[in-house]
Amino acid sequence: HRLPPMSTDQLTFDATHPRIAVVGSGAVGTYYGARLADHGHDVHFLLRSDYATVVKQGWSIQSCLGDFVLRPDQINVYDNVMRMPKADLVLVCLKTVSNDQFEPLIGPLLHPGTLILTLQNGLGNEEQLAGLFGRRRVLGGMAFVCLNRIGPGRVQHIDQGWIQIGDFSGGLTPRINAIGELFNTSGVQCSVLENLMLGRWDKLVWNVPFNGLGAALDLTTDKLIGTEAGLEMVTGLMREVVAAAAAQGLVLRETTIERKLNHTRTMGAYKTSMQIDRHERRPMELESILGEPLRAARRAGIAVPQMEALYAAVKIVNAANIGR
Amino acid sequence: HRLPPMSTDQLTFDATHPRIAVVGSGAVGTYYGARLADHGHDVHFLLRSDYATVVKQGWSIQSCLGDFVLRPDQINVYDNVMRMPKADLVLVCLKTVSNDQFEPLIGPLLHPGTLILTLQNGLGNEEQLAGLFGRRRVLGGMAFVCLNRIGPGRVQHIDQGWIQIGDFSGGLTPRINAIGELFNTSGVQCSVLENLMLGRWDKLVWNVPFNGLGAALDLTTDKLIGTEAGLEMVTGLMREVVAAAAAQGLVLRETTIERKLNHTRTMGAYKTSMQIDRHERRPMELESILGEPLRAARRAGIAVPQMEALYAAVKIVNAANIGR
Repeated sequence: HRLPPMSTDQLTFDATHPRIAVVGSGAVGTYYGARLADHGHDVHFLLRSDYATVVKQGWSIQSCLGDFVLRPDQINVYDNVMRMPKADLVLVCLKTVSNDQFEPLIGPLLHPGTLILTLQNGLGNEEQLAGLFGRRRVLGGMAFVCLNRIGPGRVQHIDQGWIQIGDFSGGLTPRINAIGELFNTSGVQCSVLENLMLGRWDKLVWNVPFNGLGAALDLTTDKLIGTEAGLEMVTGLMREVVAAAAAQGLVLRETTIERKLNHTRTMGAYKTSMQIDRHERRPMELESILGEPLRAARRAGIAVPQMEALYAAVKIVNAANIGR
Repeated sequence: HRLPPMSTDQLTFDATHPRIAVVGSGAVGTYYGARLADHGHDVHFLLRSDYATVVKQGWSIQSCLGDFVLRPDQINVYDNVMRMPKADLVLVCLKTVSNDQFEPLIGPLLHPGTLILTLQNGLGNEEQLAGLFGRRRVLGGMAFVCLNRIGPGRVQHIDQGWIQIGDFSGGLTPRINAIGELFNTSGVQCSVLENLMLGRWDKLVWNVPFNGLGAALDLTTDKLIGTEAGLEMVTGLMREVVAAAAAQGLVLRETTIERKLNHTRTMGAYKTSMQIDRHERRPMELESILGEPLRAARRAGIAVPQMEALYAAVKIVNAANIGR
């Protein structure tokens, strides 16, 4: 994936009074949407299971940065996208296993100038959005945050919280800078990347081995790097991801692997989201975290035998997990 | 591993009053040794953890073929191999993770004509015994049995129980036939194989995928064959084992894979020994069930990428499991 040429008909973002829609109000969508709403922005949330509770009680965010509450009269929540107003910016926070719902859940929110920012995990989300709604609308980002849904309408923010965003079409465009400013003035640390895909692949260097092996072998991060055999496989997978990125012209820093391993050593017995999904018998983000990077490596013509084996293994666990 | 030439100085087996030693009195050693003792043979058992109980209470076998008990005065048990008499036949039933104990545990039992029959799992046990004690002593076999140690001195025999044995030097030798007869007249169905290694590899066709994936992914046999992705990986591994055997001149029946899959479908949610070891946090028979077949395939010059990946994965799980 080399950077596409800057499009000449790029949509702009008017930050004056943007109407923001949040699609996928799990912990991530709720947290970032609530931050924006709490700072006076016009945010509209699409909910499923929590709708009945939230419409009556609002949202309660227990945050390491200070708790806050949004009362029902302070928020706009919907259980049906058809009743939502068109938005200037759609924040996509769906779990990637629901990407087949992009069209019905996002389509009705778009006017000709609507921008779409996906904060979802892994690879391929921007491409799918671009395929459905046009590349010039699409922005992406990564959330570095530790969140926990502790009940209907209740989210616990445990650690971190910063995001990195970038323009899918590449470059530090005025619109991506404006959206970065929107977050930075709303209690969310946000850095803007010149090359979004470089950031995506940098995050995959960690997510592929730890989400993948965590789910396949049902081992926490400390077990994976605390054994010689585990550290060897983690490192091997990281090298494959780095090589797959490089084969697409995305050259990560030479110290990436070392830095990520060192950071992991500080994390203790961490369970990745895919390992938690295994325990909770929920579908795993198999394709965006493992399948898409694998297919990108194949397209770039490089051999990634460890990623191949890992993808095949997690596919079995995921299928057994959800009974398919 | 092609058949070695028949040795000219092969040891013979005198079945008149053989003295039999059992090394490794877990469920397998206890069950087969107890059958022989129950049929009047002179059996001497080396025990570790259960010694104090068994020396006082003897053995109790709850068997699907009829329960039986061996009183303390009917058995010879030892907690120290140095106090045991030399034997004519040593039955090796150690878990293969203890193969580094062959020399101290078996050496003291040998006179110049002692035969050694290993009923251990997987590959490489005969070779290790041959390396230490001479090839002409070595015989091997596979136990097809479902046993459960239900307490000190208490073994539950749930299903099957038959064994296949063969001469490590190959052929239907008089001595292997005599030992087959010994079992068949002692309540243990025993068939004698002309080519022991063909039998070992036939058993590996099942053990490599189901023990390996069961331990790595923590999935029972029904989950492994009940998903498309799982069945594909199981079948792929079986094909690799069949190919690795063929590369050594051990040609398995064309229907082997199909028959083993069909048999597995009748087994329900079966936990293999390596998956149970994972749950009980005991060391797994990683090398004999996965490592040795893999190395044999490598030596034969054929690529077995799925076996490579599986071995690497179980190695991590085993290391994490036993805290190394």
